[in-house]
Amino acid sequence: MNVRIRGRLRAFRTVTFDARRNAVRLIEQRWLPHRFEVVATRDFRETAAAIREMTVRGAGAIGATAAYGFAQGLRSFRGSDLARFETHAERVFQVLAEARPTAVDPVNAMLGVRNVVQGGRTVSERQELALSAAEAFADEDVRHCREIGEQGCHLIRDGTRVLTHCNAGWLAFVDYGSATAPLYAAQAAGRKFHVFCDETRPRSQGAALTAWELAQQGVSHQVIADNAAGHLMQRGEIDLVIVGADRVLGRTGEVANKIGTYTKAVLARRHRLPFYVAIPLSTLDWNLKSGAEIPIEERPDSEVLGAWGCASDGKRTYVRVANPTSGGRNPGFDVTPAELITGILTPVGIFRPNELWKKRVVLGHAAR
Amino acid sequence: MNVRIRGRLRAFRTVTFDARRNAVRLIEQRWLPHRFEVVATRDFRETAAAIREMTVRGAGAIGATAAYGFAQGLRSFRGSDLARFETHAERVFQVLAEARPTAVDPVNAMLGVRNVVQGGRTVSERQELALSAAEAFADEDVRHCREIGEQGCHLIRDGTRVLTHCNAGWLAFVDYGSATAPLYAAQAAGRKFHVFCDETRPRSQGAALTAWELAQQGVSHQVIADNAAGHLMQRGEIDLVIVGADRVLGRTGEVANKIGTYTKAVLARRHRLPFYVAIPLSTLDWNLKSGAEIPIEERPDSEVLGAWGCASDGKRTYVRVANPTSGGRNPGFDVTPAELITGILTPVGIFRPNELWKKRVVLGHAAR
Repeated sequence: MNVRIRGRLRAFRTVTFDARRNAVRLIEQRWLPHRFEVVATRDFRETAAAIREMTVRGAGAIGATAAYGFAQGLRSFRGSDLARFETHAERVFQVLAEARPTAVDPVNAMLGVRNVVQGGRTVSERQELALSAAEAFADEDVRHCREIGEQGCHLIRDGTRVLTHCNAGWLAFVDYGSATAPLYAAQAAGRKFHVFCDETRPRSQGAALTAWELAQQGVSHQVIADNAAGHLMQRGEIDLVIVGADRVLGRTGEVANKIGTYTKAVLARRHRLPFYVAIPLSTLDWNLKSGAEIPIEERPDSEVLGAWGCASDGKRTYVRVANPTSGGRNPGFDVTPAELITGILTPVGIFRPNELWKKRVVLGHAAR
Repeated sequence: MNVRIRGRLRAFRTVTFDARRNAVRLIEQRWLPHRFEVVATRDFRETAAAIREMTVRGAGAIGATAAYGFAQGLRSFRGSDLARFETHAERVFQVLAEARPTAVDPVNAMLGVRNVVQGGRTVSERQELALSAAEAFADEDVRHCREIGEQGCHLIRDGTRVLTHCNAGWLAFVDYGSATAPLYAAQAAGRKFHVFCDETRPRSQGAALTAWELAQQGVSHQVIADNAAGHLMQRGEIDLVIVGADRVLGRTGEVANKIGTYTKAVLARRHRLPFYVAIPLSTLDWNLKSGAEIPIEERPDSEVLGAWGCASDGKRTYVRVANPTSGGRNPGFDVTPAELITGILTPVGIFRPNELWKKRVVLGHAAR
């Protein structure tokens, strides 16, 4: 999408690949919204670190980053021994898969690349195939997000007041975003609406990233504390909730997403508000049988004990907010049960969460 | 309660009065937990500013501050003309009442003082009575909080995991606190339990103040993001919720408290967890007929767009977290309906919210 740089709009993707330098190029999201910069990782371990340390975050974006990182790792192999190449590939796969255990996109993306790679007869053929498969994953992510926008556009009418949580915008994908795609489609259709961005503590992706995106695209919006959404619903000031997801279970319709999503779903149910989860097909997990099996990442408590932001001197600064002698608990994700979800908004249509399994062929399960 | 200063425990009250200097002495809560300091306001306008700007906050604490501030204002009157004295008193009352419109304690406290003052025949008698009535209010607040602890002590058993929101600790009162009083009573009874402190964005009173209090008193606790409580309830890691209140409607049992309280009540109901609201009698409002009549303070959006904390240089620093070109909405309070509340925990017993009106004589309504 567009970024305004020195007054001019320029189009960017969140993740791209520099084939000549064998480098993954990423928007450094930890510096946003205060500084816009693109960084390059020199090898797959740096790429894994960029996922782990959240230079890049969001389901589709880390999927594409893992796909590119996998290709990057394979392309760095020197020699022609296929068996040693496969051992190396396995290590690259593991390192990248472990960077964000709650998400399913990186693993799905790399499995797709690995399938294609098997078609190559030599190491160099496989290296070439890896890159084109990673590019195809990124392009598919862009197409999926655009199609999510088309499928969900009718949900946003003139005057609709939308709540979203965390960032499921274009920064969380390769382009367009999932939860934001219907907003951008509605904007393109000339509709006027308003978005409340949950701050999304502890990392404040809603306040920092979603608000930045919406401001860049000129969409009316306000940042609210995570505590405020219930009150606004009580007062009738929210019509609709749309969020993204890190993993949606195809068998049960359960949704793993940023911590606090479950709370918003519980509130939406109480106020009889529609609650949509927007995802590309790569976010579907067809294996797990229950949300209880989803690993929930426990992140460092420094995130909840303080905040990163821009101080008056313009420097990116961490301030300790909590009592200095106290510790914290910091689960990064939660699981929302199917019964609280109005619809799963996908590139191929909107589905009730409990009908995903029945529709699995349409949703691309058999194709994998 | 106790504050550890240079390794030694010293007992403090949140609010006291220096009669010789006609000054209200307050713990400067905006610097906590990073610096402990007591400040003095020189006149009633400074006292109102201390309430408005949150040097002092919390139902009982601003009640006592308003009572002392009212006495301070009356004592600053020069002359012996009773009619002019009463006009002056009315102005002092208004200035202090307008400092925090959502709370009922300041008005209740000042009405109590004003009733007593009427008994004086001369200006100087009335000035004297004002101070002794303010002292009586503060002492009653302390006694009420101690009694809340006695009434609620049985709720906290060995191993109980308690969630609390914002700060309804001793800093929010004159001593002991309301929501924390049962914790301190259970601790005195030798029980071991654990407290999750909601961070309570945007002003983070849970992370900063409640965590500081619990650490000073040696109570096991952890700070969590406001987003995390739902997940912890899902996982069975919370047994009980106790919060304070800024205003409880005696006629309906509705509770106005810090933004986010309503959300926690909705979550507690879904998980069939007991949800208690602990208050001294001065927090009861016998006049309003509906929660919709409670004025909800809209606070500056800078609070939700950034955070105050302690930077690595030890200085109190504001960092902008949100996108610099975005605005915010910042309602300071919300209203929880009676049906979500298990019990109102008062100095004279625990009541179902819908039986407050029936018990109004026990709850001190008739006495006012």
